[in-house]
Amino acid sequence: MIASTPEPPYWVVVFTSQRADGGDAEYADTAARMEELAAEQPGFLGIESARSPGGLGITVSYWDSREAVEAWRANAEHLVAQRRGRDEWYVDYAVRVGRVERERRMPRQ
Amino acid sequence: MIASTPEPPYWVVVFTSQRADGGDAEYADTAARMEELAAEQPGFLGIESARSPGGLGITVSYWDSREAVEAWRANAEHLVAQRRGRDEWYVDYAVRVGRVERERRMPRQ
Repeated sequence: MIASTPEPPYWVVVFTSQRADGGDAEYADTAARMEELAAEQPGFLGIESARSPGGLGITVSYWDSREAVEAWRANAEHLVAQRRGRDEWYVDYAVRVGRVERERRMPRQ
Repeated sequence: MIASTPEPPYWVVVFTSQRADGGDAEYADTAARMEELAAEQPGFLGIESARSPGGLGITVSYWDSREAVEAWRANAEHLVAQRRGRDEWYVDYAVRVGRVERERRMPRQ
């Protein structure tokens, strides 16, 4: 469940969100579909997701270039989901795009 | 609960983890203490955290410089917690450090 990413540098998108009430089934379907669709895009390296019950959700996706990040942002089916997110599913969100410079994985024990 | 961060560039630490069984109370105390301690460090900009029940946890902290990230990593009380994390609390984790180049917040509606 923790993504296996290559040696840095690579790119990261941190999507933090607070859900509005309701629409749980459709939201869950769309979220799963977006993870599946992201994984089909050029330059996709991995994705990690967590949501505290009734609290914050954080989805982190990894990409091999900034161009890959921008292409995913502009994907037609993704744009439709983004609009529904703004209009229906979230009361607040933030998207941050950055360049990963260093990675450390837990040492094998 | 979503951090209010300044105009990029700034730095991000994405800490993704999978908990081992047990030690829940001590772990929760230490996690809360680490959030409190991080917020007292020079260059701290904000923190966001989510954990799916029985699943992945993601904590994202924001810093004004790479030096601030490195100083937090080397903080003495934080080093003690990191060691307990490796030895007791996690079965797997990854830490990724990057430079945030772009941020978008949900438009006010």
